[in-house]
This record gives sequence, C-alpha cells and structure tokens, in this order.
Amino acid sequence: MLKDCIENVRKKAPLVHNITNYVTVNDVANNLLACGASPIMADDLSEVEEITSICGGLNINIGTLSKNTVSSMLLAGKKANELGHKVLLDPVGAGASEMRTKTSLQIMSDVKLNVIRGNISEIKTLALGSAKTQGVDANDLDTITQSTFESSISFIKDFAKKMTCIVVVTGAIDIVTDGDKCYIIKNGVPEMTKITGTGCQLSAMIVAFLVANPKNELEATVSAVCAMGLAGEIAWKNMQNGDGNSTYRNRIIDAIYNMDGKILEDGARYEIA
Amino acid sequence: MLKDCIENVRKKAPLVHNITNYVTVNDVANNLLACGASPIMADDLSEVEEITSICGGLNINIGTLSKNTVSSMLLAGKKANELGHKVLLDPVGAGASEMRTKTSLQIMSDVKLNVIRGNISEIKTLALGSAKTQGVDANDLDTITQSTFESSISFIKDFAKKMTCIVVVTGAIDIVTDGDKCYIIKNGVPEMTKITGTGCQLSAMIVAFLVANPKNELEATVSAVCAMGLAGEIAWKNMQNGDGNSTYRNRIIDAIYNMDGKILEDGARYEIA
Amino acid sequence: MLKDCIENVRKKAPLVHNITNYVTVNDVANNLLACGASPIMADDLSEVEEITSICGGLNINIGTLSKNTVSSMLLAGKKANELGHKVLLDPVGAGASEMRTKTSLQIMSDVKLNVIRGNISEIKTLALGSAKTQGVDANDLDTITQSTFESSISFIKDFAKKMTCIVVVTGAIDIVTDGDKCYIIKNGVPEMTKITGTGCQLSAMIVAFLVANPKNELEATVSAVCAMGLAGEIAWKNMQNGDGNSTYRNRIIDAIYNMDGKILEDGARYEIA
Repeated sequence: MLKDCIENVRKKAPLVHNITNYVTVNDVANNLLACGASPIMADDLSEVEEITSICGGLNINIGTLSKNTVSSMLLAGKKANELGHKVLLDPVGAGASEMRTKTSLQIMSDVKLNVIRGNISEIKTLALGSAKTQGVDANDLDTITQSTFESSISFIKDFAKKMTCIVVVTGAIDIVTDGDKCYIIKNGVPEMTKITGTGCQLSAMIVAFLVANPKNELEATVSAVCAMGLAGEIAWKNMQNGDGNSTYRNRIIDAIYNMDGKILEDGARYEIA
Repeated sequence: MLKDCIENVRKKAPLVHNITNYVTVNDVANNLLACGASPIMADDLSEVEEITSICGGLNINIGTLSKNTVSSMLLAGKKANELGHKVLLDPVGAGASEMRTKTSLQIMSDVKLNVIRGNISEIKTLALGSAKTQGVDANDLDTITQSTFESSISFIKDFAKKMTCIVVVTGAIDIVTDGDKCYIIKNGVPEMTKITGTGCQLSAMIVAFLVANPKNELEATVSAVCAMGLAGEIAWKNMQNGDGNSTYRNRIIDAIYNMDGKILEDGARYEIA
Repeated sequence: MLKDCIENVRKKAPLVHNITNYVTVNDVANNLLACGASPIMADDLSEVEEITSICGGLNINIGTLSKNTVSSMLLAGKKANELGHKVLLDPVGAGASEMRTKTSLQIMSDVKLNVIRGNISEIKTLALGSAKTQGVDANDLDTITQSTFESSISFIKDFAKKMTCIVVVTGAIDIVTDGDKCYIIKNGVPEMTKITGTGCQLSAMIVAFLVANPKNELEATVSAVCAMGLAGEIAWKNMQNGDGNSTYRNRIIDAIYNMDGKILEDGARYEIA
C-alpha cells in the first residue's frame, strides 16, 4: 500500500499549488521535488484561480498569512473545489491570534477540505473554536500522554467525522484518521522539532500523495506521514560529528529524494487504533 | 573570454538589485555572493528607484509576482534604463496565468531589456503572446528535439532580433543569442531540475556578469550560463551516498564559490551555431 | 557570564517574534531553534499585537520592508513596550534609501529599543540622520581602522548614551556598548560576509539572549555576539575541500546548535575598552 502510494507520486509527478508562508517555502518546494512532485507558488488574487486550475492539488498554509493572501486562499480553495482538486489546510499557529483562528475557521466553512494537518493545539483550536496556543508549537498542556491517549483519539476522530475529511495530528506520535479508521504512526525523531518547516513540508507532501492516489486518500496520507517521519530517522542516523539542525534539514529532504517504495514499506511503523 | 568575464565579476564586485520571488531568494543572494557580486533585495514602490540607482544592474523575476511588486518592477526598470544600467527579465511561469503573461509583455514593452532568460515554454509565450505552459517548468511539447532544433534556433534568434536584446533559453541544452550570433551550451546535468531555483540563480548571475563586463554582453551571458551548468556538473560529481537534492543545492552554490577563470575555461562546453 | 547567558537560552526557550525580511528568514528561524529559542514570524497589522504579546521579545528587521510591514513594526513595537518586552532594531540598508532611513528613525522615535544592531554605515546613518551607504554592506569609507578606532568608539558610545540603549556595530571587529561600558569582540572570520544573513541571524539571537537574561542585557548581548562569531570560526575550521559559502551557511547554524556554555566561554575573545 505505502509502496504504491509513493511510487505513484514519482510516476505521475503531480503539480501542487502552494499558498504558503515565506519562512519555509524553499524547503517546501525542494521537498516536493524530492518526492517526485512539482511545486508552484502563487498567491496574488489575480492569478490564483488560473494557477490552481493547472495543478492537481492545493496546499493552503497560513504560516505568514496577510489580508491579501487570505482572500487568495479562499478564492483558490473554491476554485479547487469546483474542479474536484484535492485541498489541504495547514492552520499554522491557529489559536495564537484571532486572525489565524478566524481564517482557519473561514477556510473550513467555505472550502471543502480533503485533509487538515496540524499539531494538537492547532487542531483543538479548530475543533473547539478556541484554545491556548503558544506560538506555532504545540502547547505542553495539550500534549497527548498515555492517560489522555484514548480520549484524544476519540476527540480527533469526532472532529474528522464532523468535517468529513481526514485529520492529521503530528507530534511525538502522529495520528491520521478519516473519522472511522485511525492510524497511529510512530516514525520520526524528536530532533525534527529543531528544524523549522517539517510540518509545512509534510503538508505539501500529503497533497502530492493525494493527487497521485486520488482514490485512496487515507492510505495516501498515511504514506506521506510515514515517509516524512522515516526521512527524519534516516537523516538522523546519517548525522556526523559537528552536524546540527541546518545540516539535518538538508539530510531530511535528501532522504525523501532517495526513498523508494521498498524503503518506505520496510521503515514505516504504524498500527491501526 | 569566459575566464575574463568571471574574473571581472570577482574583481568589480557588482551590486545587483533583485526584485524576485520569495521561494528562491535566499539561494539567489548566496549565489551572487558566491560569484563575487553583492545582492540587494528591495521591492517597495517607495524605494526601488533609489535602490536601483546605487546598483549596477537590475534582475526582474516574476516568480511570485503581486500587484504591488509588478508596479515596482516597472518603476525600477524605467529608472535603470535612464541610468544605463543592465536589466534582465526572468518571466517565471509566463503562459501559466494571464497575469504572468501580461506582466512580462508589459515589462518588455515599457523597459529596454538587455537579457530575457526563460525556459522554452516561457520564451514561446513571450514571442507568440500565448502558449500552453504547465506551471513553472517547460511543457513537454515545447522540448527542443533534434528534429525541431533548427527551427527552434531560428525562432529564438528572430525573437532576439525583434527585441534587440539577448535571449537565453535554458533546458537540456542552453541557447544564448543576440539574434545574430548564437551559442549552444552543453554544460549541466538533468538533476539540476530537481532543485528549485537554478534558473532564478542563473538570471541573477547573468546580471552580475553583464555589469562586470559591460561591453561584452553576449560573452558575459554565455560565461554565466556555462558557469552555472558547470557548477551543476562539479556538484553532481561530488555527491556522496545518501545525498539528495537539498545537499546538491548547497554544492552547486559551493561550486560557484570555488570557480575561477581556469576552471570555467576548461569546463565550458559550447559551440557557435 | 557568557556561559550562563547561553545556558539560560537553552533552559528558558524564549519565544521571539520576528518581523523580518524574506531573504534570510529561514536561516533566522533555524538559528533561533539552534540556540534553544523558538521563532514566530508574523507581519500582518491585524495580528502583530497579539503575536508579540505571547512572545518574550521582538526582532524588527527592515531588510525587505514594505509600506504594510512598516506599520506592523511600529504597532508591534509599541505593544512590546507596553508589556515590557525586549525589542531590537536591525536597520538593514539604512542610508541606502530614504524609506529605510526614515523608517529606522521613526522606529527609534516611537519605540523604546533595548538594542540597535547594524554595520558601521547603518549606525552612522541613524546617529547622523544621513550617510552614504552602499547597499546592505558597510561602506569602505566607514570601515573602522586603527587610526579611526578611538573616535569610532566614542561616536558609538555617544549614540548609545543618547538612545539609552545598547548599540552593536558588527564588522571585522564587533563593538557592543551601553554608552558606558564598551566591549570589543574579536570573534569571527572574514568569510562570514560571503553568506547572506549572518547579521540578521545575530539580531534574532540577541533578542533570544535578552529575553533569557532580562537583568543582564549588556552581557547577554555580548554573549550572543561572541557566540555568532565563534560559530563562524568553528564552522570555518570544519570546511572540507570543495565546500563553499552555502555549506558554510549550514555549518554556522550547526555550530550554534552544538555550542554549550563551556565552548562559548573558552572560545570568546573580547576586551573591555
């Protein structure tokens, strides 16, 4: 399953339209190229409909949103819906400002999403309409622990059911659910949090995987999440004396570049809850 | 010839004003520093005339254009013309949206350009006023093959003649012509397409080479194109087991950093058509 | 002293709000993560007050300022003042355009700053209200030489006294003063100028160090300046055959990532003037 999903990305080379933040945009583009997809970045209101039309999917990331780009996100999202394209929302920092929370909620209301991906604090904000978020990282109080595990899973499943879309919560463990089936993914290493943009990269990858595997959305999403975590593991094993987070950043994208179906299938660690 | 061109960049350290996209802007800046030039990025309407005045050349790249930056491109372009500065247009994604095509055509009409650099689909769009472009990469149907080689060359030469500027078409082979003389450049490796921004970097480099070699525009452009392709070759040879496109991206800029006149002269592979 | 300052950053993991340029923003974020802090980038007028409220400090960098972001800088700065947060101004290119000079002067007048950090030409511009700046690098004529050393030091001290804040001038040697005490720092290597953004990274780091050491502002600033210069030295020693400025860029951030109190204490080279 995972094997086919990643191989389809390399075969079909899907075009992904990204309206994303200027912090991690270069890594997002290189990650998409690494996994065999092709990135386009365009955020002006005058062209986002046309650009999204020539793509297979749309990645909306509110990391450095502005009044202008929010309008573009909504317009592009509606156009993508019209055309039956895959759409993902990455609600970076939802809960950290009213603008981020409101924008996320508006996108959720106006655009039919295939996937929402965030950390647990961001997802709680969207599900509850409010939450305490500490910046762009998950709040410690929200961290999923053994004692809150079962209740967290049902909370996330309920949100996915309500939204009729796939919800991905990334953290020490990653959760992927369509409200019915739920995957618990254990790939990745904690050092990935010491690099900006691993979440943004994953969101873009998920879109590429969805476009290349249109009829297996849940499996496609799981494949992308496993691939990103596994890339983090492979890259961490390759670290040399003196290397730090900047070299690690490069090595993660390198690991995606070198990942084939067999490596992914062998390295993926997940169970179905 | 090539030797002098690159050595003049290192000697004269030209200042280059870039109005460019936020995807590859960091690599553009580091590439300019690598080849001995100095980058300035500024795109607000209130300051682009002043900033371009203190520079030697202007690099206009429409990769993530917006209503505001388009006005800045036109204003800066006209000021650069007034001062006799070198100006290059990189029409990223021309043909992918009406905004990109129209903006490119307007810049071509309002600003006297020294060089236009793009892939074959972008250049066809500008020459014909319309074309089918698939995003920011060249359309397969536009690829120059052996059977279309001669007609492609004349098409590009005619466009250069009409525009009275140098036209650079990059791809599997690169073509540089002023409408009269035409260079066919065979440096580079296909893996360069797996990194975002090699084209953007080349455009900025060409401006640096033009500013440092004001009276040999065609040779300066050819030198920059050979240098970038050769850097791609050298970097590819240095790739280690486990390396991928992100490390490759660094190694290409590193190869520019270490390139001297002799390395360029020995490694350049071109013929005059 | 230096030891405690860097260790406090790692212990307290301060949140830093950055309104900064899109050229070096990714390196700024990864540098903050490397030293143990947490970055947030947000520049829309609607959210900057809220975002800055959840952070400990604010880093204002005018590298690619625009009409919109200037308003955001002022609003965020005033809010940070209200809350007693640390605020730094990095006046990138002040003197290169009227917009940059005026914006810097307005921020200096409307916002109480804890630190101003720039090259000698930028600082002269702010102190005198005008200067000849060549782009974003220091003007050769402004370079501090042995014969101008004493007069430069008093000039910078006077400016710090007038502004009642810490002034940091970086260059071949770095000067840090609160108008009274003055540190002369000799860490760093000339090759650091061949990378875009080492100054921007340092500015962000200084904010992180201030937030983590609120009662020792001068020592915190000196620690950050020594740490950045030392990282440049360590990274340069690790350079391999074929490496250039792009690999060097990664290695500097890596060196910050691996720097502990002892490494900093042993490697710092400064004297008090």
